[in-house]
Amino acid sequence: MLADLIFTTPAIETIFSDETELRLMLDVERHLVGAQAHVGDVPDWAAQVIDSVCAEPDWAIQHIREQVLLAGNPAIPLVNLLRARVTQQNPEAAQFVHRGATSQDVIDTALMGQLRLAFALFEAELERLVQQLRALDQTHGSAPMIARTLLQQALPFTFGDKLAGWLDGLERTHQTINQLKTSTLSLQLGGPIGTGKSLGEHRERIYQLVADALGLTNPPRAWHTQRDRIATLASALGTLNGLLGKLATDVTLLMQTEVSEVREGAAEGKGGSSSMPHKRNPVTSTFMVAIAHRTPALVSTVLTTMLQPHERAAGQWHAEWGVLRDLCRLTAANLHHANDLFQNLEIDEQRMRVN
Amino acid sequence: MLADLIFTTPAIETIFSDETELRLMLDVERHLVGAQAHVGDVPDWAAQVIDSVCAEPDWAIQHIREQVLLAGNPAIPLVNLLRARVTQQNPEAAQFVHRGATSQDVIDTALMGQLRLAFALFEAELERLVQQLRALDQTHGSAPMIARTLLQQALPFTFGDKLAGWLDGLERTHQTINQLKTSTLSLQLGGPIGTGKSLGEHRERIYQLVADALGLTNPPRAWHTQRDRIATLASALGTLNGLLGKLATDVTLLMQTEVSEVREGAAEGKGGSSSMPHKRNPVTSTFMVAIAHRTPALVSTVLTTMLQPHERAAGQWHAEWGVLRDLCRLTAANLHHANDLFQNLEIDEQRMRVN
Amino acid sequence: MLADLIFTTPAIETIFSDETELRLMLDVERHLVGAQAHVGDVPDWAAQVIDSVCAEPDWAIQHIREQVLLAGNPAIPLVNLLRARVTQQNPEAAQFVHRGATSQDVIDTALMGQLRLAFALFEAELERLVQQLRALDQTHGSAPMIARTLLQQALPFTFGDKLAGWLDGLERTHQTINQLKTSTLSLQLGGPIGTGKSLGEHRERIYQLVADALGLTNPPRAWHTQRDRIATLASALGTLNGLLGKLATDVTLLMQTEVSEVREGAAEGKGGSSSMPHKRNPVTSTFMVAIAHRTPALVSTVLTTMLQPHERAAGQWHAEWGVLRDLCRLTAANLHHANDLFQNLEIDEQRMRVN
Amino acid sequence: MLADLIFTTPAIETIFSDETELRLMLDVERHLVGAQAHVGDVPDWAAQVIDSVCAEPDWAIQHIREQVLLAGNPAIPLVNLLRARVTQQNPEAAQFVHRGATSQDVIDTALMGQLRLAFALFEAELERLVQQLRALDQTHGSAPMIARTLLQQALPFTFGDKLAGWLDGLERTHQTINQLKTSTLSLQLGGPIGTGKSLGEHRERIYQLVADALGLTNPPRAWHTQRDRIATLASALGTLNGLLGKLATDVTLLMQTEVSEVREGAAEGKGGSSSMPHKRNPVTSTFMVAIAHRTPALVSTVLTTMLQPHERAAGQWHAEWGVLRDLCRLTAANLHHANDLFQNLEIDEQRMRVN
Repeated sequence: MLADLIFTTPAIETIFSDETELRLMLDVERHLVGAQAHVGDVPDWAAQVIDSVCAEPDWAIQHIREQVLLAGNPAIPLVNLLRARVTQQNPEAAQFVHRGATSQDVIDTALMGQLRLAFALFEAELERLVQQLRALDQTHGSAPMIARTLLQQALPFTFGDKLAGWLDGLERTHQTINQLKTSTLSLQLGGPIGTGKSLGEHRERIYQLVADALGLTNPPRAWHTQRDRIATLASALGTLNGLLGKLATDVTLLMQTEVSEVREGAAEGKGGSSSMPHKRNPVTSTFMVAIAHRTPALVSTVLTTMLQPHERAAGQWHAEWGVLRDLCRLTAANLHHANDLFQNLEIDEQRMRVN
Repeated sequence: MLADLIFTTPAIETIFSDETELRLMLDVERHLVGAQAHVGDVPDWAAQVIDSVCAEPDWAIQHIREQVLLAGNPAIPLVNLLRARVTQQNPEAAQFVHRGATSQDVIDTALMGQLRLAFALFEAELERLVQQLRALDQTHGSAPMIARTLLQQALPFTFGDKLAGWLDGLERTHQTINQLKTSTLSLQLGGPIGTGKSLGEHRERIYQLVADALGLTNPPRAWHTQRDRIATLASALGTLNGLLGKLATDVTLLMQTEVSEVREGAAEGKGGSSSMPHKRNPVTSTFMVAIAHRTPALVSTVLTTMLQPHERAAGQWHAEWGVLRDLCRLTAANLHHANDLFQNLEIDEQRMRVN
Repeated sequence: MLADLIFTTPAIETIFSDETELRLMLDVERHLVGAQAHVGDVPDWAAQVIDSVCAEPDWAIQHIREQVLLAGNPAIPLVNLLRARVTQQNPEAAQFVHRGATSQDVIDTALMGQLRLAFALFEAELERLVQQLRALDQTHGSAPMIARTLLQQALPFTFGDKLAGWLDGLERTHQTINQLKTSTLSLQLGGPIGTGKSLGEHRERIYQLVADALGLTNPPRAWHTQRDRIATLASALGTLNGLLGKLATDVTLLMQTEVSEVREGAAEGKGGSSSMPHKRNPVTSTFMVAIAHRTPALVSTVLTTMLQPHERAAGQWHAEWGVLRDLCRLTAANLHHANDLFQNLEIDEQRMRVN
Repeated sequence: MLADLIFTTPAIETIFSDETELRLMLDVERHLVGAQAHVGDVPDWAAQVIDSVCAEPDWAIQHIREQVLLAGNPAIPLVNLLRARVTQQNPEAAQFVHRGATSQDVIDTALMGQLRLAFALFEAELERLVQQLRALDQTHGSAPMIARTLLQQALPFTFGDKLAGWLDGLERTHQTINQLKTSTLSLQLGGPIGTGKSLGEHRERIYQLVADALGLTNPPRAWHTQRDRIATLASALGTLNGLLGKLATDVTLLMQTEVSEVREGAAEGKGGSSSMPHKRNPVTSTFMVAIAHRTPALVSTVLTTMLQPHERAAGQWHAEWGVLRDLCRLTAANLHHANDLFQNLEIDEQRMRVN
């Protein structure tokens, strides 16, 4: 779609690229075998072979993509490939690849790795946004303007009051995002049926070692079909996008010709019309409104997919994948636009006073 | 609808009854004026008159319901009625009714009061459910059964492993519900444009007094159009219903004729078929699946309504009301069914072993 | 909820009342046995007994409501009650009650009967709305006003151009609603597993007779778990509410203090503020915006419930019931508000010209 | 995402590629100026210059993608580029580029062109699916099997009865898709504010000529902010995916180890498990269930975006773009998987008889 760049950013595309996804899956495999070696379940030399193979470049991504249609998920072809490459290096090491793990362990943990990177990005962007709003409060916060309820002029307050409203929800959500990073971004490691038995008697230590190596929380149990963490993460993004959408709605309303209290800064060629060259349209805030219209339904999809049968879902899990990626893309884009908006927002204090 | 009782419980209906809603709104008014008297903004005698009028029975609910169509919300006709009644008692006290507050303060705070009661109910039901699952683990947890992935028989584990999976998410959500009660159930009090100026210079103390009296958190600012708390509460209920739906899905699958490992207890007349009297159908678990299909979209509606313009919404706020009530109704019903299910669930250990 | 009347109308409440639902279910039973008598499968006298019992008043609605929790649906207790009452009249007739039918036949057909009444209501309201918009075009259509794109003033057109835009979608949807009445409101009659075999060799004639008696289409097959018709009906209501929401959004924007080109007519007490008595707020258009925010997610729930397993769903079907009722309620209310809005809308041609 | 190919097909990717989108936008421009030349509003030579420039290869797609972030939509940079290239050929012809049109005309019409291609694809895939189901009925339709209601064994019927159920909804939807192609895939051409005045007095003939050239319906009015057609198209896809999801749900249930009545055909490497090599998992039906879980929320997003203010939306329209593309992608993939499923489905008549 020619308009794709509205709905994503380069940084989030990198996080959700095939290459990153593959590297994070290989990280699971190598940290798993590393931990197994550490507790003595696997010979050190074998772990080293596997680790070094995992570090190889060029993993036949196109082949893996195509094999997904037969295998049902990307971990199976990747593990097959990994096993084959390890066999080439040292046939006896191959038996230690992916030992005790299941596809979903690798995919869910890699997803959590992607979410970890994404949430760090969101946090940084939110931090920057909060700083910008505070700086704007310094420069224009005391400007008197009219408050509006039900789209009617109500009573005077200041632009600082409006900023404080926007900041209120954003700061709270900033904190939530920060908390979720430690409480909710968790290792998945339970083996074929989630009990962890396949990982042997040292499994508790293995869990902790792998979780630490990957920067994830070590949960009390595998959560193959208990998806509340995923729902919680998705909901937090839904809430964040709602707050940004509220802010952008305010900006589009304040930019109305009849109101004209703020205005998106004019980059060359920005906000023009193909038929009416004299107009200056909202652009960035419009993108934010668009994104905020798309996110709620994605959260509802994640909630819908929670009804995962037995010990591994038959489709409901697959449905999560693209939806979580899209939620992260949209969130990254929304935050980026928000920062862009305030970097260039022009405040017309004179007009605020008149209205 | 003749099937209404599937989707609600008497306890939650009481919480969301017109009577409770009205009482909670009057509570806001009387605690507000009480606080204002306490800080010296209002004469004590006036606060006492208002307080005693608020305690009167019979508030012309039908009249208020009809006036909503003109006034736009239920606080306006209630405040008018309150003012009229106070005037009858003491005309000079009437000026102190609803002083410095706005409709949305009263309605949002009353809603938070309803959610406080509802969350206490959910917590108690969750507690009971967790206890039941633990008790079932005591009696049947060691029964061997087959784990199933992608609806295929995978490897043996125990019924206790399955119970542990269900418990895992529910215990975590139990904790979340508990945390939200203190972090997120908040007073709304900001006056016409949310700045609180209308409440005078003692407003900080007034906030705290009213919040304490109502058992709500005192937030840093009014949140008339910053609805992240509402979204967070709704999302938590969405997640909880997803977990219950997963559990119920498992039960319906385990009850299949070909599997028959568990069975809903037979109350007289329960689970029959109008055309095939010999059948024993899942009933309670079916209700739970139904409810879990209805909740995700309600969460998405709440997220959609976050784009509330300026200092008071023009419709987006009204849209929340029925949706939050329905979410609470469905959650209460789902938890009730879950407890009912496990009170009567029959476990066929013999059949588990054979499969 | 004290604000309930915003989201429904008396007429739609009657259609979705327990009494109407029960009567429509009894209609299915009596027309079924009537048709079976007509083709000679049931003795005429038995059909007459059943018919006369179906006409009795007082059907113990509270008992049926409670039995739903055991039976899983309302048809089972109603049929039991019907059979008992027929037995009292004539024990030999009882065997002919509900013969060859299944619960879902009765419930789905009664639902289609409710939708038939609801769609007739929607059609009449839409007709009235279209007439009102056309009349407004006669009186104010030529008034010049500014068109706005991206919330910016663009080029002049007329209020008639704006009306024509609103009318365009509404007329098209009026036609769709009309078409769906004949194409999609269908009898459900297939017996326990949907094949109709339980209805004997004259079943094709029975279908036609019952469908004709109930004013429904006779479909090629029972559709117990093929829910595309339900989805299509729900989607049409979603679309209609979207159009009404767009119209109402325009009105709220045109009513902004800074624009003031239209205004909701002032009934006494309408549109006031509890804290700012001088304000005139949008009320009816606000209700419409609220409703339009609630309907999309309900459509998505209906679509989600389409994944109904095998020959009868285990929960997904139950989930439809309340959602379809709520969609109809909200649609009726939205149309009612729309008609109310235009009955009282004040057009400020002077202000349009100035802007 | 390494699993992307589950959720799309090469054919639909081509339709929604940047190249196709760009070509369809250029088609709008050249057919518009062609029609204007035909009615005498533009000199023939100028139309020919523009037409020949539109046929040029290499349109700086990356540049257009980036400019979208400034311009707000892809039509503005494309028209600028087109004008520049025409100027190079013949400076006097440049004034006739995009004459009387607006960005949204070009983008909406190009979208309708994409949907036209997509719906033709869906129709062909549906046709193939219906044929496959009918062929399966020939070979296995008479096999006796058990019907299941509420996941319980109910009464015997045949595999043909089950096929007839699946076919029922699919054939009806096939017809709907076919009807929508002619009734709903419409030209958008109204100029800056949708009245068409900018297209001069011959506009009615121009509309018809452009619509005919593009294979689209000529609607009575421009529909820039009346989005019921878009909602209707999206809803139809939602319904279709629901039917496919129901079918796939049945297949996953019939493939359960305990039931084993059907089985996805074994391609090499298909349906294996990374940890349990002996298992044969559902794969294709699992993909279909996944897709059917993702589509309902996308429909609800489209319905949510219908509240488009005034004569051009400020974000709600942008929100449609990616959602419609994703709906088409998912639909194409679902239909592809369905055809794939039945090409290889193994029916175990023996097992059906035993159950």
